Amino acid sequence: VRAEIVGVGTELLLGQITNTNARWMSERLAEVGVDVLYHSVVGDNPVRIASTLRLAMERVDVVVVTGGLGPTGDDITRDVLAQVLDVPLVRHPELERFLRERFAEFGLPMPESNLRQADVPEGVRYVRPERGTAPGLIAEGPDHVRVYAMAGVPAEMREFMEGTVLPELSALAGPAVVRSRVIRCTGMGESAVAERLEDLFEASANPSIAYLADIGEVRVRVTAKAETAEEADAALAPLLARVTERLGDVVVSTDGATVEQAVARLLRDADSTLACAESLTGGRLAARLTEAPGSSATFRGSAVVYTPESKRDLLGVRRETLSGPGVVSEACALEMAAGARRIFEADFALAVTGVAGPDPHDGEPPGSVWVALAGPGIAHARHLQLPGERDRITRWAELAALDLLRRHLAGLPLPARERA
Amino acid sequence: VRAEIVGVGTELLLGQITNTNARWMSERLAEVGVDVLYHSVVGDNPVRIASTLRLAMERVDVVVVTGGLGPTGDDITRDVLAQVLDVPLVRHPELERFLRERFAEFGLPMPESNLRQADVPEGVRYVRPERGTAPGLIAEGPDHVRVYAMAGVPAEMREFMEGTVLPELSALAGPAVVRSRVIRCTGMGESAVAERLEDLFEASANPSIAYLADIGEVRVRVTAKAETAEEADAALAPLLARVTERLGDVVVSTDGATVEQAVARLLRDADSTLACAESLTGGRLAARLTEAPGSSATFRGSAVVYTPESKRDLLGVRRETLSGPGVVSEACALEMAAGARRIFEADFALAVTGVAGPDPHDGEPPGSVWVALAGPGIAHARHLQLPGERDRITRWAELAALDLLRRHLAGLPLPARERA
Repeated sequence: VRAEIVGVGTELLLGQITNTNARWMSERLAEVGVDVLYHSVVGDNPVRIASTLRLAMERVDVVVVTGGLGPTGDDITRDVLAQVLDVPLVRHPELERFLRERFAEFGLPMPESNLRQADVPEGVRYVRPERGTAPGLIAEGPDHVRVYAMAGVPAEMREFMEGTVLPELSALAGPAVVRSRVIRCTGMGESAVAERLEDLFEASANPSIAYLADIGEVRVRVTAKAETAEEADAALAPLLARVTERLGDVVVSTDGATVEQAVARLLRDADSTLACAESLTGGRLAARLTEAPGSSATFRGSAVVYTPESKRDLLGVRRETLSGPGVVSEACALEMAAGARRIFEADFALAVTGVAGPDPHDGEPPGSVWVALAGPGIAHARHLQLPGERDRITRWAELAALDLLRRHLAGLPLPARERA
Repeated sequence: VRAEIVGVGTELLLGQITNTNARWMSERLAEVGVDVLYHSVVGDNPVRIASTLRLAMERVDVVVVTGGLGPTGDDITRDVLAQVLDVPLVRHPELERFLRERFAEFGLPMPESNLRQADVPEGVRYVRPERGTAPGLIAEGPDHVRVYAMAGVPAEMREFMEGTVLPELSALAGPAVVRSRVIRCTGMGESAVAERLEDLFEASANPSIAYLADIGEVRVRVTAKAETAEEADAALAPLLARVTERLGDVVVSTDGATVEQAVARLLRDADSTLACAESLTGGRLAARLTEAPGSSATFRGSAVVYTPESKRDLLGVRRETLSGPGVVSEACALEMAAGARRIFEADFALAVTGVAGPDPHDGEPPGSVWVALAGPGIAHARHLQLPGERDRITRWAELAALDLLRRHLAGLPLPARERA
């Protein structure tokens, strides 16, 4: 099954929003064995939407359209779809009732113009949405080409994709099931990862290997296609094991879990708690650790200390440290970690201090970063000299700090210094 | 001048990366008066790249292609471009020297396969890059259609766009200059914004108005096209003034500045400092406030307190507050703010406490949020009952907290309670 994803909306062409829908849909479609061959984006223009739909219906089996199903005059996807299918729009009383009820639930009067959302091209199936007011549409074109059309609002798009499009296409794609696993690594560059896996990569077709390098981490995805999920998993297992073994202790997880998720698991297993002391990362380490529901089970808090005085008064960093080696130093990082551990009464604490740039700070160049871990029987600091801009340095430092704790909790040796 | 943006790369179709290039390029092209009519994405497949390029060259005046210019076997954009133009590839000795020098600078041996990057379709202009190794290409096709091809790496793409594509197209688009200004509002929903601006919106063509709603804020963009930047700005000014006046004190900025940037400016003008106390937002408020270089001039720190004990021990929230109204209460928010102000010795402090969900907490439902402001002569709290999921609630709460301080520093009345 070959597919094209068509996004409708002038706001995409003006660059006002990013086409994140296309990424999410592509990933999900690949998982059910659908090959996405094209993405297209077209504005709210009837002639260009029609030609885009016609071209897509000629060159693929399934066209997945988002956007242009709202209630305003700009929203013309349903009209153009009717025109391309050469059928009239039909108003469905059942949808009309649904729309009136939905507005009543919201406690809002319904503008009569909203009834356009009760119009469906003749012969086209529709699905009433749980969220929003735009029904999802399922049309059959010439040569059994199928067209799915849905709202562009991400939550509404996902609802129709998960409830209708993916189950139907999974059945259509037949017995082929695609399963993939993501191995996440930190502390090793992409070229080093690729070098260790080179022969496996060259030899692999099904299951296959792909890399994706990001700031401070590399994701390796292994994917297998088979007739059943069990067969795909069985085909995946030996390659997954080999890749994991080759990469060794830089592997953070083999189920896609992020380093903060891996750390949260290890802390839960050890029945331990964590606190942070952040200068360079300005709250981002805490933000990562509180992203998932239930994070309060292991995370106690973070002292974001942006001044030397707050490092001293809140965390007990010594005056001699501040006036001597300074705020970007091994001593300061270790004292910050010890202080956070104490004031939050946590088992472990991570500290980050460094220079985000663009200017040097306290005698240290941009990218100079100290991360430290304090805990029962452990007080360890690591220096990194990181390349790149502010965002990149901060993000890398977050991962390096979290990875110190991951390695410690997993009983692995801790790195001391690194030039990245 | 009508344009199409073509992204080449299977990783886009697999959903491994988001097409952020297309958004950035669209925005820049609009600014120089180029109408982007289509975005297309195609994988690393010669037949499909060729048909995509041919179609684009038929339907627009300028085709802007990213990706597929790297040194590996997957990178075939230059080969397909030569084929579509019906010319051979020619190796340029000047580019060969450049590549060898670039690798020498990096201290790396150059694989001979890299010399593919010295190949250019005959008759096609090229630009040696400052970053990376892929020259940017400029081709003229039939009927004067122009094709620009560049690397997909964002920094390399931006270099070629800014150095070559945008200046050339700005000249090609003739005297038309497009200028736009973004008015950012918080504390008013999209429909309320639209209602206040309805007649201006209906009447506007050049300058024009567009809305973009996001979580907790609405951006209104006014855009004017004229022969010179001065004329465009002059055409813009009255509409900008009218929109700003209509929207009133919910306007955070008229130059696109975010609420945290607006707050940082107001603090700098008042020679004042800020600290935070965060429960619900888990460090995200601090992260926003430390995003820009130079934030240490006004931001002192944040106490991320995820447990009742740390609220009490670090911030001095009273036992009676914790055991009485609880951690999600007006009293707790006010005491957190007062505590943060004290421990960080800041002029102002913002506090956020609430329930991110999915489960209720301390007797309060998900979405129940208190934000508080403490400062000289001010102690104010506001309750919000927010809809939606964890991320959405957190983000909205961040903006609501920052907006309290913005309003106070701007001498505006502070809202007390809100159902959003």
